[in-house]
Amino acid sequence: MKNIKLINSIIDIFKKYGLSKNHAKICADALINAEIVGAKSHGISRLKMYCERIKKKLINPKPKIKFKKISESITLIDANNSIGFVAADIGIKKAISSAKRTGISIVGIKNSGHFGLSGYYVEQAVKNNLIALCFTNAPPAVAPYGAKKSLFGTNPLCFGAPTGSKAPFILDTSMSLINRGKIRVAAMTGKSIPKYVALDKHGRPTTDPNRALEGVQLPISGFKGSGLAWMVDILSGVFTGSNHGGKVKDPFDNFTGPQNIGHLFIVFKTNLFVGNFNKRIKENIKRVKKLPKIKGVSEILYPGQNKYRRYKKNMNKKIIIPSQILKDLKNL
Amino acid sequence: MKNIKLINSIIDIFKKYGLSKNHAKICADALINAEIVGAKSHGISRLKMYCERIKKKLINPKPKIKFKKISESITLIDANNSIGFVAADIGIKKAISSAKRTGISIVGIKNSGHFGLSGYYVEQAVKNNLIALCFTNAPPAVAPYGAKKSLFGTNPLCFGAPTGSKAPFILDTSMSLINRGKIRVAAMTGKSIPKYVALDKHGRPTTDPNRALEGVQLPISGFKGSGLAWMVDILSGVFTGSNHGGKVKDPFDNFTGPQNIGHLFIVFKTNLFVGNFNKRIKENIKRVKKLPKIKGVSEILYPGQNKYRRYKKNMNKKIIIPSQILKDLKNL
Repeated sequence: MKNIKLINSIIDIFKKYGLSKNHAKICADALINAEIVGAKSHGISRLKMYCERIKKKLINPKPKIKFKKISESITLIDANNSIGFVAADIGIKKAISSAKRTGISIVGIKNSGHFGLSGYYVEQAVKNNLIALCFTNAPPAVAPYGAKKSLFGTNPLCFGAPTGSKAPFILDTSMSLINRGKIRVAAMTGKSIPKYVALDKHGRPTTDPNRALEGVQLPISGFKGSGLAWMVDILSGVFTGSNHGGKVKDPFDNFTGPQNIGHLFIVFKTNLFVGNFNKRIKENIKRVKKLPKIKGVSEILYPGQNKYRRYKKNMNKKIIIPSQILKDLKNL
Repeated sequence: MKNIKLINSIIDIFKKYGLSKNHAKICADALINAEIVGAKSHGISRLKMYCERIKKKLINPKPKIKFKKISESITLIDANNSIGFVAADIGIKKAISSAKRTGISIVGIKNSGHFGLSGYYVEQAVKNNLIALCFTNAPPAVAPYGAKKSLFGTNPLCFGAPTGSKAPFILDTSMSLINRGKIRVAAMTGKSIPKYVALDKHGRPTTDPNRALEGVQLPISGFKGSGLAWMVDILSGVFTGSNHGGKVKDPFDNFTGPQNIGHLFIVFKTNLFVGNFNKRIKENIKRVKKLPKIKGVSEILYPGQNKYRRYKKNMNKKIIIPSQILKDLKNL
């Protein structure tokens, strides 16, 4: 394991900021995983922000996380403003054990914060041979269809299923044409963003990441993507008792209170209705992969496959950290 | 009720084709509802197709529908090649009663057929103050991202929730840029379809509905929409034991066997985690509606709101049927 030193220093930083060793490790693992799968926007570049929020008492480093058992299948978790990684990790583990026992589980989490990549938690369920859906809301970034001000977060919907092979099917898709994290990384590294994915604060298309951050991101496919983002806000925010309707605070620039993000996991066994799910999905994927391809495409990939390949490629490589972030790391 | 004569003649037609009075009524109600909400592509224009499939013994007019109770929350329904309306109607009613008892239910349906509008069933759950998700697959129409041949259906995802007002939140969104039914109606009425939503069989953009039907529909937002359509195929097809991976037969032009479509309902109570869901969602919708609007937009609508308005407007009006379809009706 090439990055053991890096992991340990992240653990040490979180411990210095008051987290227990166990919670610090959960956070470090999630950040390192994001780096390894190539989602740098959700990786170490966020560490400084988390520490700042802890310092300002907006993230509780020693949360008293409460479980409210509604039934064997249904649990509400009050994360007590814990860091999102810890809340989501505890939540998915509860959802997994519940689903294993009863066939299907639903776990709502309130008073949480940004938890990184949805796929990271869904993958845990899939490794237990379960199917999982995960919904989480996020600070305003996307304009509802017809509005010129943002209100929805990028609000990812994540779905995972075993594939009968090592690379799981993990669809982790935000409802915006571009991930907000990617805009942030572009801003930090001085790069531009693609055309027609965002507007500036005057409603004009822009490729400048800083102007896009002040402005509005566009939803995928107009009314449809706007509706999907709204659905995610209802399921993760309205339904769980968390902030919703544009009230989730931006972790980077709103220090007036905790985020109170909501998450929802729905997890179930693959064999509820068929005995040979893994064989069936293998056949399904095979049929798609056999289709004639458009020019320039050598292989049709299923969601999650590329990420898994990056994981395999990078897991034994040293993570490269930009100098600015390395400096931040030393200061923390 | 202006359309009682029309309903009765549809019931009579289905009875003539062997359906029980009860099943015939379920079908007639669903078709009439599609007409009233303005989804003519899913209305009476399809009646001839259903009758043809019954005549060719591809739809079973007297199905022996079997329930396999997995737990209080989990049921598998084998629809025995019933007409989709009946299978879905029985399925959602089972999901509703289960969710009311246990908090959450999951109902899989196999050996079913095209069931019309997903929103029609989800609405039944919402009227019972429940939240519902519905997934169903469909015959090949959409090309997976990277492929030049269609394999996924338009594969709608439908989500519904109460709003604390009469018009429910019903997001019923196919994963294609245009509904296949709309292309069919355009073909029947000699109209053209919008640009860049479909390709002809040679992979060229087309606005000719007949060429689009021979060709390929495009998914919303490229890889994201393709992934969402794939998710729906896994949940409704692979997971329930139904046809999947491009094997669902087109009801209009493939008479080599039953469709064996799969449906999946996940239904749960609004008050699992909060006591005031309706008040919370009302506040959520209010916040979105208050946003500044883009030029030309006078009101921001939530999914389902427009459909509800059409329903209110049309429910006491006589349904207008194109002469060709009226002729078909008389022949049946």
